[in-house]
Amino acid sequence: MELLKNKIRQEGTVLNNSVLKVDSFLNHQIDPVLMFQMGEEFAHRFQDAGATKILTIESSGIAVALATGFKMGLPVVFARKKKSVLMNEAAYTAKVFSFTKKESSEITVLKKFLAAGEKILIIDDFLASGEAALGLTEIVRQAGSTVAGIGIVIEKSFQAGAAKLQAANYHLESLVRIGSFENGQVLFL
Amino acid sequence: MELLKNKIRQEGTVLNNSVLKVDSFLNHQIDPVLMFQMGEEFAHRFQDAGATKILTIESSGIAVALATGFKMGLPVVFARKKKSVLMNEAAYTAKVFSFTKKESSEITVLKKFLAAGEKILIIDDFLASGEAALGLTEIVRQAGSTVAGIGIVIEKSFQAGAAKLQAANYHLESLVRIGSFENGQVLFL
Repeated sequence: MELLKNKIRQEGTVLNNSVLKVDSFLNHQIDPVLMFQMGEEFAHRFQDAGATKILTIESSGIAVALATGFKMGLPVVFARKKKSVLMNEAAYTAKVFSFTKKESSEITVLKKFLAAGEKILIIDDFLASGEAALGLTEIVRQAGSTVAGIGIVIEKSFQAGAAKLQAANYHLESLVRIGSFENGQVLFL
Repeated sequence: MELLKNKIRQEGTVLNNSVLKVDSFLNHQIDPVLMFQMGEEFAHRFQDAGATKILTIESSGIAVALATGFKMGLPVVFARKKKSVLMNEAAYTAKVFSFTKKESSEITVLKKFLAAGEKILIIDDFLASGEAALGLTEIVRQAGSTVAGIGIVIEKSFQAGAAKLQAANYHLESLVRIGSFENGQVLFL
């Protein structure tokens, strides 16, 4: 997605050989117009996937998942990283390790929002080690549903996640794929 | 907003005399169409407020803030409840106590996303004690900006927050205002 590549070139900051900061439009400040362009792109790429619901994870996945849900006419569920005291109901959970926050957390989706037999489109902002996406696929499996596809805004193809998801035969669509960071520059595939 | 009242009547669950659960469309599962109707309503109510940016707080505020930002053509910033290791830059912070999570947290916005002299429209899902909204106004004050208005999806008018915000002369717009919960029913004002 050329528009997103340009935004990353203009506003992204390469912090080291594995971390890209895009907090000016994706995960702290949000550019609503870009979110809807990305939602439209995911809607296009997954138009034949037969998805019945979208699943993402708080917080940075919510905006792009909402935009995608709006374009596809589907409800969105976001997995919680921290259970509120109001979530005292039957739930699916999976363990996820965050490399940027350096901690393991349990993600939770209430069972009532994932019925068996659904076709779930997973949407998230970054794909690096694949921990978050695999945690979400595990929740879909527990629910007795199938994964209709996995849509990622920024794939860091040099980390293990993309290969893991492809090895598991998921239909993976990433809006941009990054091959490496060199001298502070982003090299797209 | 009649549409939202009906949704609350149909899908909301009154847990006790102060807590309403709306996780089927607002803060765990999200109804994208309703989000955009609410965004349009906020855009209408704040059309003369001169807002230059929208500020919300993760996670449940993000969807409705994004929809509002899209309708108003404004960028959205969401305050973080937990700092990632990538947020090692100058930041504004404020303390907020969550009554549903029973804990105090520090909310953070990087200074680079709140320049002085902006007119900030604060958007959030619930107004109860006013802790989150007041924390956001404190961050706007620290930035040298002014609050253009405060838009709330569900105001529990019987708790202290609405009175506090009005006493401080903020332009408060709540899409629905709840006077009380009686016998498991929601009584709107």
